[in-house]
Amino acid sequence: MIVALAGGVGGARLAVGLAAALPPSQLAIVVNTGDDFDHLGLAISPDLDTVMYTLAGVNNPVAGWGRAKETWSFMSALAELGGDDWFRLGDRDLAVHVLRTLALRRGVALSAVTRELAGRLGIRHALIPMSDTPVRTRVLTARGVLAFQDYFVRDQCRPRVRGFRFAGSRNARPAPPFARIMRSRKVRAVVICPSNPYVSVAPILSVPAIRAWIKQRDFPVVAVSPIVGGAALKGPAAKMMRELGCEATALGVVRHYGSSVDGWVIDKQDAKLERAIEREGKAVIVADTVMNDRGKSGKLAQRVVSFARALAEQR
Amino acid sequence: MIVALAGGVGGARLAVGLAAALPPSQLAIVVNTGDDFDHLGLAISPDLDTVMYTLAGVNNPVAGWGRAKETWSFMSALAELGGDDWFRLGDRDLAVHVLRTLALRRGVALSAVTRELAGRLGIRHALIPMSDTPVRTRVLTARGVLAFQDYFVRDQCRPRVRGFRFAGSRNARPAPPFARIMRSRKVRAVVICPSNPYVSVAPILSVPAIRAWIKQRDFPVVAVSPIVGGAALKGPAAKMMRELGCEATALGVVRHYGSSVDGWVIDKQDAKLERAIEREGKAVIVADTVMNDRGKSGKLAQRVVSFARALAEQR
Repeated sequence: MIVALAGGVGGARLAVGLAAALPPSQLAIVVNTGDDFDHLGLAISPDLDTVMYTLAGVNNPVAGWGRAKETWSFMSALAELGGDDWFRLGDRDLAVHVLRTLALRRGVALSAVTRELAGRLGIRHALIPMSDTPVRTRVLTARGVLAFQDYFVRDQCRPRVRGFRFAGSRNARPAPPFARIMRSRKVRAVVICPSNPYVSVAPILSVPAIRAWIKQRDFPVVAVSPIVGGAALKGPAAKMMRELGCEATALGVVRHYGSSVDGWVIDKQDAKLERAIEREGKAVIVADTVMNDRGKSGKLAQRVVSFARALAEQR
Repeated sequence: MIVALAGGVGGARLAVGLAAALPPSQLAIVVNTGDDFDHLGLAISPDLDTVMYTLAGVNNPVAGWGRAKETWSFMSALAELGGDDWFRLGDRDLAVHVLRTLALRRGVALSAVTRELAGRLGIRHALIPMSDTPVRTRVLTARGVLAFQDYFVRDQCRPRVRGFRFAGSRNARPAPPFARIMRSRKVRAVVICPSNPYVSVAPILSVPAIRAWIKQRDFPVVAVSPIVGGAALKGPAAKMMRELGCEATALGVVRHYGSSVDGWVIDKQDAKLERAIEREGKAVIVADTVMNDRGKSGKLAQRVVSFARALAEQR
């Protein structure tokens, strides 16, 4: 079995490929919940939904969030009524938030709600929030500490980043379906998807039992670089790296993750970094990592899976 | 000042006419909340919203509930996800439910939320829920006790009615803006709109302080018959009257209200009942009460206001 750790768009795209490459019994997709928040009284899980919609093929591929064939009547009426409209919620998308909020209020765990919703959308692979209890990413900026969505959506990543905090992580535990997989010893590799290292992957690794499991691993961790040609394909990863004094390159990402990752998949645009990454003591493969359609997601996933299997066999 | 007591569609239509006939300082519209309910975690107030949307001119005149230019993406996604879809919530309509739910959870009173929402929709007259604390209409039927919306929407009024109960009414108090009007002694007349006597008006009168205020009144109560030509223009009023052993006519309604009403406005189709109603000791006028456009609402409202003023002067 392979466990993929995923954030938003990049994670969702690799997850689609992995789900095409592996049967449901051999893949679990664990998703960041650090960017979850309560908004308008609704429990919003942006990364979970991006991965869920993308796996189900009902995502909006242009925006990178929300649903395809979306309508915006709710937002338009909300604005007319003076409601907060800085975070855009589509009419179809709302159905997920309303059902999730209702279930959470009734005491259903986030992992159980997610399984139910994903199942209804036809997803057969395990889609698991990293934790059932809230972990909330806070962005330490020159303007003070910001809740993640305030930084990310409301302020459009403008404030200069000084660090991150994951409120609630100390007492968070892996969601039970993930904990069962961790205990099962069936995991042959962990794949870190090309998601933001600071605000997509770090929150997952901030859960103590997940971090310890990775640290004491008897399986390889393979990661796909979220930085391609010195930039993030989407989102503020490269900007964050620079603001934190890191080199915004695939090599910078390799150094950021250090011993947490054994094998790297870098983009063909970054082939020149291959040797430098090897000098960091890592296995490397070069691939086309720009997943702008399902076919490319599938191809990349197959290379990632082969790479992970090869590293597992070498151990 | 005139206080109008209103339920759904008929109440909303007369309210529009009254709002055209009277300035904001001379009209308060008090609306039934007995059919309010929690659905999908949202606080739904069907009668309040029908009156609010109709006053604002954004209502769906065909359905008699909900908003004009509505879209249904939320319901469609909800059904796909296995959510309860027997109660239809349009995408625009949802904005009101979400904002109301959020405000109520934060401890804002229903009357204050309603004022805010109505103001945003451009309504200048006072639109007041009868009570800020929940009163919930229960329908006693041959199939047992049903929550109002289960009877009304889910079961489409099919079960035979044996009576009604207004849970929470004993401890309910008039919403503060209404209580202030009651105390002000500025009320010259109460108008009971052509709304269902059992499930629109009775819940309002079930609030002890409202009932006592009507009973000890020094102003006339004028009512527009919701039964025209032996039928209700909309809704189950006539069916309920028959099931409860009442005559489903304007005269039946007059007898139902008894001493609570001083003057009756009956439809021209029921002109033949004028003398019989007078024999019940009531003042009567005959008017065109079928308000199928705003002009007719305005004309009827003017006649109702003149009638109420005349009765007030006679006291």
